[in-house]
Amino acid sequence: MTTTSDRPVSRRGLLTGSALATGGALTGAATLRLTADGPGAVQVPVAQVGGAVEPFHGARQAGVATEPQAHATFVAFTLKPGTDRAALGRLLRLLSDDAARLTRGRPALADTEPELGLLPARLTVTFGFGPGLYAAAGLGDRRPPSVAELPAFRIDRLQPRWSGGDLLLQICADDPLTVAHAQRVVIKDSRPFAAVRWVQQGFRRTAGAEPGRTQRNLFGQLDGTANPTPGAPTDAAVWVPDGPAWLRDSTTMVVRRISMNLETWDLLGRTDRELAVGRRLDTGAPLTGTAEHDEPDFAAIGPDGLTVIPDFSHLTRAHVTDDRQKILRRPYNYDGTPTADGHADSGLIFTSYQADVTRQFLPIQRRLAERDLLNEWTTPIGSAVFAIPPGCPDGGWIGQQLLG
Amino acid sequence: MTTTSDRPVSRRGLLTGSALATGGALTGAATLRLTADGPGAVQVPVAQVGGAVEPFHGARQAGVATEPQAHATFVAFTLKPGTDRAALGRLLRLLSDDAARLTRGRPALADTEPELGLLPARLTVTFGFGPGLYAAAGLGDRRPPSVAELPAFRIDRLQPRWSGGDLLLQICADDPLTVAHAQRVVIKDSRPFAAVRWVQQGFRRTAGAEPGRTQRNLFGQLDGTANPTPGAPTDAAVWVPDGPAWLRDSTTMVVRRISMNLETWDLLGRTDRELAVGRRLDTGAPLTGTAEHDEPDFAAIGPDGLTVIPDFSHLTRAHVTDDRQKILRRPYNYDGTPTADGHADSGLIFTSYQADVTRQFLPIQRRLAERDLLNEWTTPIGSAVFAIPPGCPDGGWIGQQLLG
Ligand code: HEM
Ligand code: HEM
Repeated sequence: MTTTSDRPVSRRGLLTGSALATGGALTGAATLRLTADGPGAVQVPVAQVGGAVEPFHGARQAGVATEPQAHATFVAFTLKPGTDRAALGRLLRLLSDDAARLTRGRPALADTEPELGLLPARLTVTFGFGPGLYAAAGLGDRRPPSVAELPAFRIDRLQPRWSGGDLLLQICADDPLTVAHAQRVVIKDSRPFAAVRWVQQGFRRTAGAEPGRTQRNLFGQLDGTANPTPGAPTDAAVWVPDGPAWLRDSTTMVVRRISMNLETWDLLGRTDRELAVGRRLDTGAPLTGTAEHDEPDFAAIGPDGLTVIPDFSHLTRAHVTDDRQKILRRPYNYDGTPTADGHADSGLIFTSYQADVTRQFLPIQRRLAERDLLNEWTTPIGSAVFAIPPGCPDGGWIGQQLLG
Repeated sequence: MTTTSDRPVSRRGLLTGSALATGGALTGAATLRLTADGPGAVQVPVAQVGGAVEPFHGARQAGVATEPQAHATFVAFTLKPGTDRAALGRLLRLLSDDAARLTRGRPALADTEPELGLLPARLTVTFGFGPGLYAAAGLGDRRPPSVAELPAFRIDRLQPRWSGGDLLLQICADDPLTVAHAQRVVIKDSRPFAAVRWVQQGFRRTAGAEPGRTQRNLFGQLDGTANPTPGAPTDAAVWVPDGPAWLRDSTTMVVRRISMNLETWDLLGRTDRELAVGRRLDTGAPLTGTAEHDEPDFAAIGPDGLTVIPDFSHLTRAHVTDDRQKILRRPYNYDGTPTADGHADSGLIFTSYQADVTRQFLPIQRRLAERDLLNEWTTPIGSAVFAIPPGCPDGGWIGQQLLG
């Protein structure tokens, strides 16, 4: 199959480097036409959920502050030997071009299943740079210091198969076929440059199932209540406000794969579960309140003389009052194949975004690792940290400020 | 946690058999109230997509003629030694009760995550009986003769981990969390009686992404065009019209896990792909027509003197003209973890429903196995056959006519 666009850049050119000269023209607005072998262009009508678009271009990358989509896949790559700064430039131009097209509901260049590229369904493709990418590019001095392997925690049972990575692509959309297709495209296009290290697929409630509600995880908890809301003053917690071009409007991302032991959790009474977190299961209200967004009162004492919200509850241990110290959580559920005796392989693909991992994420994680009732039923089995570089304007590419 | 309903049946009773006496009262309409340890009932508002209900009760099981939901999981069980006719009755009462509740957006009895049971999202739970179930019940003579392992085909590369099964639960809903929760409930409740043999999870376009359109598979093809439409005369192809109570309004189901080699498929030109199937990739029209639902003209000859639709195309080989010989296909895509070098683990969870496997499915499968251009890129890696017994009225249970 041949897929041509009326623009002077070829996929082969990108792979070999000969298109580098075209520079900023890469993602220019162009009317993509699929000529194919046969006559006629691909024309498929597009409906509401399927047709919704999240803009790819902008000062900040999409997929962070974006209202979480129903489906996500996280693809981490290990760069191949020889993928140096110049090769990384070509790879990231290619992937930015893929993302710019697919997020608009246009097939990628040389898309071998162009019909699967026509429904964006709020697709976002978010790029993360691991420590190894800075090293490969010879730009170790530009790596944000907090973008490094996390210290080991007592609670960790990390598996290499879910950990680390030089490059991350976080692909989210409200449609699972759109996610599968975008995953296929970016993996194919990365192949000359990078090997797949791990892939994690997750889900939340489907679009429109519970509009405006906080999602639930597989423990049945409302998960995401105390997230910072977009806009000032919490924006400063997520986005780097200044510095050189490759830092301004960037953020960092922590991905932790955390298995949730439904077997033992299910043996707990409802009261014990609510005490473990400090919030009610039905409404998500703190144990000292009645509505989900009531402020928890950590000082309130119950008839038994103890704090109503236990001091070692997840809520108490994780709670952050200073807006600048908050983290933005964007978790997805995973549910793998159960064992023969019916034990679930369930958990959370926990992701958080923060301006600085060391300043914001680590203190919380340390408090939780030290003492959090929830630890009894949760186990971190994967861990990775990435810089989320700034976005790019139409015509630009992700990583341009760093590598260009 | 305690979950109580104001009805005189207990989960423990079902597990031990002591509730059998209550018989038909099992799924009677009752107002479920979750008392929990703490005060107050669970109250969660329910929105459109999430709130949509497919009725569980009826002469025929739901999930067959039901407009396919976006997400599916197929759970096959191996019965444990000692799961005899009486135990099967208890298991199926329990599972029917789970299904009756969850499909209405009510938590299951003793649901340990009741909040996850409140959004039905068109949930259906469809029960399939494998050959081993009839044997375990001592009812081999009531097994529909075509419910048996399929003959081996030249193209097969079957793996035990995706094949066979004594009992199947097909769980479909428009929301992935609803599917995950229902899967968890039925696996837990089956545990005393049966081991999990395999689980296959699949997806289609999300609800509302492309209303009224045929879904696409991961080859980018419209898949499902020539399906029989519900109603006479094709109803007779799917449902057994008469016979004893355990056969009337039953059907049979074939599940084939078919891997699709995207690597080699992606090397093909567009024309070759369209010739392999006999339909266009964009519109799904037969190569002799212009619209998806045009009748294919298998006799039409092209300028090269050959039939326009190749004689060995999937369309030509699979085509059935006699309405009574048709099968109802309800395929789901699967997309597992790609290999390190980026090779996809993609394919189709092919399911078909027909009154009789031997009379309807087998002739098609034989023709395809013998010669079908598509075989070059597809490989059956799993296979199972189940009877889909009749449905049950409110207060009844699936399998009642056979085992009751
Ligand atoms: C499987 C593991 C986890 C589960 C099931 C879980 C669950 C929850 C739940 C139910 C809440 C309350 C509702 C909400 O505000 O979202 C919560 C809050 C929170 N969690 Fe977690 N969590 C997990 C892991 C983590 C990790 C690894 C971190 C960070 C290191 C974290 C940080 C937080 C924070 C910061 C809050 C908000 C606290 C506040 O300010 O009120 N959680 N979590
Ligand atoms: C991965 C494997 C398969 C793929 C990708 C595939 C794909 C397709 C496509 C694209 C069509 C045309 C559109 C439509 O009518 O749905 C089709 C038609 C059909 N397929 Fe398949 N198929 C596969 C396996 C099978 C198997 C195993 C069977 C049965 C043994 C089967 C039976 C049929 C039938 C009966 C038709 C309709 C033919 C007609 O009457 O026009 N297919 N398939």
